[in-house]
Amino acid sequence: MSHSFEAMWAELLPVGRSASSGGYRRFAWNSADAECRAWFEQQARDRGLAYELDRNGNQWAWLGDPHGAGAVVTGSHLDSVPDGGAFDGPLGVVSSFAALDELRSREAEFSKPLAIVNFGDEEGARFGVACIGSRLTAGVLSQEQAYALRDADGVRLPDAMERAGQDPTAIGADADRLARIGAFVELHVEQGRYLGEDQPVGVASAIWPHGRWRFDFHGEANHAGTTRIEDRRDPMLTYANTVLSARKKAKLAGALATFGKVAVEPNGTNAIASLVRGWLDSRAADEATLTALVEEIRLAAHERGERDGVKVELTRESYTPVVDFDGPLRDRLAARLGGVPVLPTGAGHDAGILASAIPTAMLFVRNPSGVSHSPAERAELADCLAGVAALADVLEDLACQPS
Amino acid sequence: MSHSFEAMWAELLPVGRSASSGGYRRFAWNSADAECRAWFEQQARDRGLAYELDRNGNQWAWLGDPHGAGAVVTGSHLDSVPDGGAFDGPLGVVSSFAALDELRSREAEFSKPLAIVNFGDEEGARFGVACIGSRLTAGVLSQEQAYALRDADGVRLPDAMERAGQDPTAIGADADRLARIGAFVELHVEQGRYLGEDQPVGVASAIWPHGRWRFDFHGEANHAGTTRIEDRRDPMLTYANTVLSARKKAKLAGALATFGKVAVEPNGTNAIASLVRGWLDSRAADEATLTALVEEIRLAAHERGERDGVKVELTRESYTPVVDFDGPLRDRLAARLGGVPVLPTGAGHDAGILASAIPTAMLFVRNPSGVSHSPAERAELADCLAGVAALADVLEDLACQPS
Repeated sequence: MSHSFEAMWAELLPVGRSASSGGYRRFAWNSADAECRAWFEQQARDRGLAYELDRNGNQWAWLGDPHGAGAVVTGSHLDSVPDGGAFDGPLGVVSSFAALDELRSREAEFSKPLAIVNFGDEEGARFGVACIGSRLTAGVLSQEQAYALRDADGVRLPDAMERAGQDPTAIGADADRLARIGAFVELHVEQGRYLGEDQPVGVASAIWPHGRWRFDFHGEANHAGTTRIEDRRDPMLTYANTVLSARKKAKLAGALATFGKVAVEPNGTNAIASLVRGWLDSRAADEATLTALVEEIRLAAHERGERDGVKVELTRESYTPVVDFDGPLRDRLAARLGGVPVLPTGAGHDAGILASAIPTAMLFVRNPSGVSHSPAERAELADCLAGVAALADVLEDLACQPS
Repeated sequence: MSHSFEAMWAELLPVGRSASSGGYRRFAWNSADAECRAWFEQQARDRGLAYELDRNGNQWAWLGDPHGAGAVVTGSHLDSVPDGGAFDGPLGVVSSFAALDELRSREAEFSKPLAIVNFGDEEGARFGVACIGSRLTAGVLSQEQAYALRDADGVRLPDAMERAGQDPTAIGADADRLARIGAFVELHVEQGRYLGEDQPVGVASAIWPHGRWRFDFHGEANHAGTTRIEDRRDPMLTYANTVLSARKKAKLAGALATFGKVAVEPNGTNAIASLVRGWLDSRAADEATLTALVEEIRLAAHERGERDGVKVELTRESYTPVVDFDGPLRDRLAARLGGVPVLPTGAGHDAGILASAIPTAMLFVRNPSGVSHSPAERAELADCLAGVAALADVLEDLACQPS
């Protein structure tokens, strides 16, 4: 038994969707995540694929020998950012099953093991670190580091895993698994608007270097109704000025800089804040530009902080260097797809994490508005089906020819 | 039995104090609040005063007939803002007991009933409305309005009262009680720095008109790493610009404007916000200035919103007109205290709520740094004792002479 792309899509659509926002709340190890995982397992079983849950919480559906060499793997993730859209992640997983169905209908003969994967906790919505499933597998996040992670309610990552029935003592690098993979291809909805007319599908060239920096603006709590303006040390002013400078300087640099998350103490209407924390997300085409941009923003924050009597502390919370996808694989995909556009992206992906260990590629499906990480994120059905066909072509090329 | 000012102060000091911040978390009907209330009751009983808990959760300690006419009432509140200081509220209550002790040591003869009051939920930290105890008593907050209030965890005000042993069905206007009060005097730590050298105590002239306005900045959620700058509708930019304009315009107007509370959706590091809510607290010496200032801030927000593709909505959440304290009472206090400074304040108080119903006055005790609503809030002991002496003088003048 198999399901059409549309049928699979319809099954996943209501899972973890908020009635009020229309966005998704599929976070690592929550109940919506469990439903998505049950769906994945069922899809594997319905197709007679060998289902496997690995030590790091990633799900695998195998056609052929899971222990064979040179496996071709495709897939993506099923979790979401808070109030995210339906496509980011699930489009890749659903398209993978649909591409396998397409290859079977073509009566393709597989010469290599093929697997479909659902990487756990790609978005990092719960524990603040993205791509936890692939990072653990690749050994770039250690068990010790993972054990130190807590969600907003103070729940530790290993406790969350355990409550969901996953043994947390087994997590960690899985080099043997990666050694058996010959290529990983992740299909993903495009998250910008670089694919144009007559370009439903593209191939990734690289992932921009990107990072998260936390700015702590330390002022002095005080009464908003009685403290003279000259006696104030209001960190909200320094924060606000930093938000505006970051935007200006990013625009000049042809880069991106965003403050999307803020935490204020004590966060009372009639209290001047004692502390404003603002998180900067910044990305650029190359690392030199990114480094220079963040330094400029830091300087602007300090300068304004001196005027406001506010102390500014900067902490780099994460940093990912530029990822150049495997050149030969990228060229082979682009050629197989008849010269589709090859384009970079600013977003991190499991494919970016794995690129340092195995040959990795990505396919993008056009996003007409460019909106993503939002309930308004979307792709046309025709483009999704073009993506499935492209993925099937690529997998056939990689898995069905003698190596 | 009585206790010295210092002894009473030391008893209250640890109650509800956070070990991490050093600030207080005495919120309506929580366990710290209950401890403060038990302390108040004990102080009343230790002095042989008649203890009374009224229908609206305010505590009273009576010397003389609680049902007599023309009572002189003094007191303040024991609750705090989140991470507030030790003085805002408790200084008035402790000073009231100490002033009574002083009058007894003077062997004063009371010609009128005297009461010390602890008004419930003055700061509004839990349910978002300040001065709930005095508002209910004065009938400016109805039972229906109070029943609609919820705390951050969704607990309804009547349920919180009931859990604390207070009958919520009895709350509401208490005109008979107010009719028996001839004068209310509230002593409070100063919350600015207007009292200077050799001025440990002042008398209040008025409370500035003030209000809270909620700005909703509606943009579009999107991926921070992939959305082109020209495709963004980022409400954080509009918010930031509004924060800075509010400060500039308030300074020009000789008024106050503060953004101290923010809520962001979805508040993710790699997500452009869909919604930023910022709360403006603004105050000025007169209502015309305040109205004009808020209108200027509104216009600046709309103007920037048009540039950012962000829709701005403004909601006035609360507004308190100017309060002029009772002229004859104010002059009588100032004269009795030998011509101490008479000064306005920007902060709301229970005395401000009651001023429309009964003759009301306030005494301020000097605050050397002007810091309040913060763990750093303080007053010198010598100034506190000067406050106690001034309050005793005033109460003697009001309650110990034949009317």
